[in-house]
Amino acid sequence: MVIVMRADATEAQRRAVVDRVTELGLTPHVSVGEHRTIIGCIGDEDRLRELPLLSLAGVETVLEVDKPYKLASREYAAGPTILSLGTGMVGDGAFAVMAGPCSVEGREMLLTTARAVRDAGAVAVRGGAFKPRTSPYSFQGLGPEALEMLAQARDEVGLPVVSEVLDTRHVALVAEHVDVLQIGTRNMQNFALLNEAGLSGKPVLLKRGMSATLDDFLLAAEYVLNTGNRHVMLCERGIRTFERAMRNTLDIAAVPFLKRETHLPVVVDPSHAAGRRDLVRPLALAAVAAGADALLVEVHPDPDRARTDGDQSLNLNQFAELMGELEALRGALAPVSSAPPSR
Amino acid sequence: MVIVMRADATEAQRRAVVDRVTELGLTPHVSVGEHRTIIGCIGDEDRLRELPLLSLAGVETVLEVDKPYKLASREYAAGPTILSLGTGMVGDGAFAVMAGPCSVEGREMLLTTARAVRDAGAVAVRGGAFKPRTSPYSFQGLGPEALEMLAQARDEVGLPVVSEVLDTRHVALVAEHVDVLQIGTRNMQNFALLNEAGLSGKPVLLKRGMSATLDDFLLAAEYVLNTGNRHVMLCERGIRTFERAMRNTLDIAAVPFLKRETHLPVVVDPSHAAGRRDLVRPLALAAVAAGADALLVEVHPDPDRARTDGDQSLNLNQFAELMGELEALRGALAPVSSAPPSR
Amino acid sequence: MVIVMRADATEAQRRAVVDRVTELGLTPHVSVGEHRTIIGCIGDEDRLRELPLLSLAGVETVLEVDKPYKLASREYAAGPTILSLGTGMVGDGAFAVMAGPCSVEGREMLLTTARAVRDAGAVAVRGGAFKPRTSPYSFQGLGPEALEMLAQARDEVGLPVVSEVLDTRHVALVAEHVDVLQIGTRNMQNFALLNEAGLSGKPVLLKRGMSATLDDFLLAAEYVLNTGNRHVMLCERGIRTFERAMRNTLDIAAVPFLKRETHLPVVVDPSHAAGRRDLVRPLALAAVAAGADALLVEVHPDPDRARTDGDQSLNLNQFAELMGELEALRGALAPVSSAPPSR
Amino acid sequence: MVIVMRADATEAQRRAVVDRVTELGLTPHVSVGEHRTIIGCIGDEDRLRELPLLSLAGVETVLEVDKPYKLASREYAAGPTILSLGTGMVGDGAFAVMAGPCSVEGREMLLTTARAVRDAGAVAVRGGAFKPRTSPYSFQGLGPEALEMLAQARDEVGLPVVSEVLDTRHVALVAEHVDVLQIGTRNMQNFALLNEAGLSGKPVLLKRGMSATLDDFLLAAEYVLNTGNRHVMLCERGIRTFERAMRNTLDIAAVPFLKRETHLPVVVDPSHAAGRRDLVRPLALAAVAAGADALLVEVHPDPDRARTDGDQSLNLNQFAELMGELEALRGALAPVSSAPPSR
Repeated sequence: MVIVMRADATEAQRRAVVDRVTELGLTPHVSVGEHRTIIGCIGDEDRLRELPLLSLAGVETVLEVDKPYKLASREYAAGPTILSLGTGMVGDGAFAVMAGPCSVEGREMLLTTARAVRDAGAVAVRGGAFKPRTSPYSFQGLGPEALEMLAQARDEVGLPVVSEVLDTRHVALVAEHVDVLQIGTRNMQNFALLNEAGLSGKPVLLKRGMSATLDDFLLAAEYVLNTGNRHVMLCERGIRTFERAMRNTLDIAAVPFLKRETHLPVVVDPSHAAGRRDLVRPLALAAVAAGADALLVEVHPDPDRARTDGDQSLNLNQFAELMGELEALRGALAPVSSAPPSR
Repeated sequence: MVIVMRADATEAQRRAVVDRVTELGLTPHVSVGEHRTIIGCIGDEDRLRELPLLSLAGVETVLEVDKPYKLASREYAAGPTILSLGTGMVGDGAFAVMAGPCSVEGREMLLTTARAVRDAGAVAVRGGAFKPRTSPYSFQGLGPEALEMLAQARDEVGLPVVSEVLDTRHVALVAEHVDVLQIGTRNMQNFALLNEAGLSGKPVLLKRGMSATLDDFLLAAEYVLNTGNRHVMLCERGIRTFERAMRNTLDIAAVPFLKRETHLPVVVDPSHAAGRRDLVRPLALAAVAAGADALLVEVHPDPDRARTDGDQSLNLNQFAELMGELEALRGALAPVSSAPPSR
Repeated sequence: MVIVMRADATEAQRRAVVDRVTELGLTPHVSVGEHRTIIGCIGDEDRLRELPLLSLAGVETVLEVDKPYKLASREYAAGPTILSLGTGMVGDGAFAVMAGPCSVEGREMLLTTARAVRDAGAVAVRGGAFKPRTSPYSFQGLGPEALEMLAQARDEVGLPVVSEVLDTRHVALVAEHVDVLQIGTRNMQNFALLNEAGLSGKPVLLKRGMSATLDDFLLAAEYVLNTGNRHVMLCERGIRTFERAMRNTLDIAAVPFLKRETHLPVVVDPSHAAGRRDLVRPLALAAVAAGADALLVEVHPDPDRARTDGDQSLNLNQFAELMGELEALRGALAPVSSAPPSR
Repeated sequence: MVIVMRADATEAQRRAVVDRVTELGLTPHVSVGEHRTIIGCIGDEDRLRELPLLSLAGVETVLEVDKPYKLASREYAAGPTILSLGTGMVGDGAFAVMAGPCSVEGREMLLTTARAVRDAGAVAVRGGAFKPRTSPYSFQGLGPEALEMLAQARDEVGLPVVSEVLDTRHVALVAEHVDVLQIGTRNMQNFALLNEAGLSGKPVLLKRGMSATLDDFLLAAEYVLNTGNRHVMLCERGIRTFERAMRNTLDIAAVPFLKRETHLPVVVDPSHAAGRRDLVRPLALAAVAAGADALLVEVHPDPDRARTDGDQSLNLNQFAELMGELEALRGALAPVSSAPPSR
C-alpha cells in the first residue's frame, strides 16, 4: 500500500498517518517529494485494505501494491492447474471444448446433441437445468427433471456434464447429478453460492460477471479456492459496455492477461459474447488464437426452435465444422509454454 | 415486437417470418419500405420475446415495443406506491432518510448511531449483519449476532431496521429480526433470493446492479412483485463506468426516469456512489433535487475507525448537518405531483 | 511515480530500474516488502511519465503520484477563477445560466429566444452556427451567416453570445463574432483546436469528452491554459455508459469532484445529458444542488419544429419556469465556500 | 422509423403523429396493438431522423429501421473494397501488415525500423510526425521534419508510409509526404478533418473513437466516402470500458461485425488495445483469426528507450517472429469468402 499525501498536508497530518500505519503493524517508509509525500507501507497489506485511510486528514489517495488474491495467483502455485474432464483435460496446452444446449428442453434433444458434440470432439456436455432469466415471465428451465436427463446423458453418451447452479439450496442436488458446477455471470459475486459450490468438491466453471474487473473475477475464484477446492475454471463471456451491437463485448485480452496472472485454466464462451450465430465462429477462432484453454459453446439440434438462446446457438453441423477449423488453427499455433510470458 | 427484414430478404423469407409469427398467435402487419420491410407483430409480445427471430433467414433486427415488466410499470398501477416505515412514509412526496453504519460492529456503536440518526430525523436504521465482500479475506459481518443487535436497537430506539440478506437460506432468519430486507447490488439478479425475499412479505429495498440497465432493474423488481409482495423500494447507488475517480458513477437521471416509468419509490444511496465522505453531501442534495423519495446514508460514530466503508461514512455531526440542509432544500422545491411528468 | 516490482523480480532487475530512474534525474527510494518491492521516485515526475517503465524486466506496475495537470489544479492557483460574462459572473458562488437554441435557424427565432432567456435571467445566449453531426447527411448549421445573426443578437439584446468552433481555420472568424468559444465533446481532445481557441484570448467553454476521464478533461483544459488564456469553463454534459435509456449518463459527482480539484468554474449541460425534455428540469436542479457554477440549457421557441435537438429543448415558458425554480433552490442551499471542501 | 405510442396515448395524439409523418412525405402504417400502437413510417427515413418526434405528445419511443450510413454499407457496394498499398493489397482476403514506430524520433531509427519491417513482410511503414497527446507537456512529435524523414524512408526502403494528421491546416502538407492519412481515435468525429482528408484523395486509415459505437464509426467513414474518396480502411484499436487492466478493451467482435456490414477493409491495432508488449502477440493472432484484413503494429528498434508508447512496442526480432506466426495462422484458416456471412 502506498499512501499519497496532499501537497498541502501538514507535518502533523503526515505523522498521524505514519502512526496509524505503525499501530496496525506495518512499517511506513516516508519519501518526501517536491510536490507530494508518499508513504510506502511494508507488511501485511490485507490489514490496511479495509481501513479508512483515504479520509484521514491530508491523504490524497491510496494506491494498492499487493494483489488482493493469493491462491488464484501464479506466484502462489507450483505450476498451472490442469483439470480432468472425463477423458479430456483442460489447462496448459490441453485444449478442450464443452458444448450443448442452453437449456435442457427434453430427453431426446439432449441425447441427440450430446452424441453429436461427442462425435465432433467435445469433451463435455453443457446443458441448463436451472436458468437465470432477466424476466420472471421467461422459461426458467426444467429444474430437477433436467438434472436427471443430464445424468442419464452422461451415462449413455459417456461425457461428463456441466450445469449451472443458482441457489445455495440446490448445490447438493446439482452436484449429485452433474460433473461440473457452473456459476453464471449474474452470480459471480454471490459469495454464499461460491462457498457452497467450492465445498461440494466438484470442479467449478466460474463465469466472469458482466461488470467485473479481472481483479474482481480472480477474487471470486479465490472464494472457491479458499474452501480447499482447487478445481476452478475461469470463463470469459463478454462484458457490458456502451457497444450494444453485440450482446456483450468479448474481452479477448482477458485471455492472455489471465494466463499471465493465474494458474487456473481460462475458458471462453463465444456464444454469450456474440449473441448471434454468425459471430460465434470468428469469436471461437479468436479465443483459441489468443490462448484460451477451452471453449464453452451453445449447440442445439434445431436452433430456430430453441426455447432459449436460439439466436446464438449453432446447429449440429455448424458445430462439427467449427471443431474442424479449431483443430486446424491449433495445429498452426506455436506451442504455449506453461511459463508466464516474459515481457 | 417489430421485425425488420434485411434489404436483400426474399419474398419467401418474408413469408416464412410472417408464418412463424402467425403460428405463435400474433398478427403480423407488413409494411414494405423503400429499403426494408418491417413486420409489426400485434398481440402478446411475451410469446415472442424468448424466441430466435434474429437468426431466421432474412431478418436484420428485432425491435421490442412492449415493456417487459408489467407489475412494476405505472400503467399497471392505480397510483404511486407509498410504504410505511415505522412512523415514516416513503414514496410520492413522503420523503424519508434511512441511515446507519455499513456494518454492525457492536451493540454500543449501533445504539449510539441509531439514537443519533433518529434524533436527526431519520425514519429507519440501516446496518449490515451479513456483508458481501469482494475478497474472502475481508470482514464478512457479525452475522446472526448482529441481527440480534438490530432487533434490540429497534426496540430501544423505536425505529424500524434495514439489513441485507445474501443467501436464500437466511431469508427467514433475517426477516424475523429486521423490518426491511435489503438486496444488494451484487445480488440484483440473484433471482432465487429475490423470490424468497418477496415471499417473506417484508418490504424489500432493492439496489440496482452495478451494470444493470434500468430495464433490468425493473425486471428484478418484477420478480419480487410477482410473489405478491408489493412493498418494493428501488435504490440507485451508482453504476460501473470507465470513470474511476469515484467509486461508482451515480446515475442521477435514473431518479426522474424511474419516477416516470414506475409507481415504486426511488431511493438514492449517495454513500456507495461517492466512495468518499466529501462527495456524499453534494450527491445527497442532488438526489433530493432530482426527485428521490428517500436516501440511504452510511453513518458511523467514528468513521476513521470503521471496519468497513469508513471512507464514505459520515460522522454523527455531519449527518445531522446534512439533514438540516436536506430539509431546507426540500422546502424550496416545487411540490412533486403524483402524476407521471408530462413531456 | 511508484514502481512496483514483481514478486519474482531479481536483484539485478531491481538495480536496473533504480539506475534508470537515477539516470533520469530522479531519486529512487526502495522499500523492500514481504511480497513486492516498491521504488518511490522523487523528483520531476513529468520526466518519467512518457517513458516505458512498465516493460522493463521485473516491473509489475507503475503508479502515478503527481497529478499530470498543473495550471488547472487548485494547488497552482491563488484562488477560484471567476469569469465575467457581460453583466454576469461565473464561478465561486456567482451562479449563471447560459441558454439558447441548439442551432441558429434564423434571425427571428434567435432574437425571440435571446430576449426571452434574458428576461428570464440568463446571462448569455448560446446558439450553434457550425454543428458537429454524427451523419454527413444531417443539417450542419448555417455557418458564417449564423455568426452574423449571433453578433446582431448580442447588440440588440445586450447579452454575450456563446458558439461552438469546430475547425482551427474558423477560430478567428468565430472569435470575431462571439464572446465565448465552445469546444464540443467530440473535440475535447482536438489539441490543435484547443490551442487555437486558447490563443484567441476569448473565454473557452470546454465540454467533457464522452469517454474522457476527469483527468483527461483537466488535461484538455491545461492545453488552453497553457496558451496563457485563463478563461476556461469546464462543462459536464454526460458520459457514455452501457445505459442507453438516456442520451448520456450525467456524471453528477463530477461537479463536486472538479470543484475540489480545480479552480475553474464548473458548468452543467442538462440538455445533452437528458436527451429528452422531461428530464432536463430534474437534472438542472440536481446540478445546482451538487454545486455547479453555471448551467447551459437548450431553449427553442418551438421545440417540436426545431431542426436539431428539439426533443431535448425547453420552450420559452418552460425555461422561465425552470429559472424560477433554480432561484428558489439556490436560496435554500448553504453558501458554498471558496475553500476546497475538507474531508 | 417506427414510432411507438404510449399505452395511454389518445386518439387525437395518434392522429397528430400520423399527420406529422404524412406532412413530411412519408407514409404512416398504423398497427393498433393490445397495449401500444405502433406507427411504421415508410419512405425516406433521413427526413425524420433529426426531427423531434420523441417529445410529441403521446409518443413513447422512436425506433430506427434504416441504417444511417449508405456509402459504407455492403448494400450500396458492388463488392468488397480492396486497396493497393505499394505492392501489397488490403481487403477481402488480401492480408497486410503495416508497422513502424509510434513516433518518428530520427532518421536512423526510422530507416532501421522500415527496413526491418519490410524484410519481415510488412507492406507499409507507419510513423507519427504529429502526435496527439493527452498532456500538453508530452512530446508532440517532430512535425514537418518527421514528414521529410517518412518521405525519404519510402524512397529508400520502397514501402508506402502511413502517418497521422491532426489539423485541417496540415492535410495538404501531410498528404504531400505520405501515402496513407491516419485519422486517430480522438479525431474520429472531427468532421472537418474527415472532410479534408477525404478531399486529399489519399487513402484514409480511420481509427475507431474510444467511445464510438460501430454505427458512429461507419458514419465517420461515411464523411470520407461522401467526398468521393473510396479508399477508407477501418481500424479497431480498443474501446474504453470499466476494465483498466489493459489500456483499452479490444472489441474483437467488431471485426466480423464490420465485415458483415461494410465493404471496407477492417484493420486491427493490437498495440494500442494492449498497451503492453506481452499482450500484443495474442491480440494480433486473435485479430487474424477473427478475420481482420490487416494489422497495424508498433515496432521500435529499442522500445525501452522509445519516446512514446515504448511499453507497447515490439522490438525488431519480436516483430519478425510475430510475422512468422501470423503467416502460419493464416495458412490454417479456411478461406474467407467475399460474401457477407449468412446466418
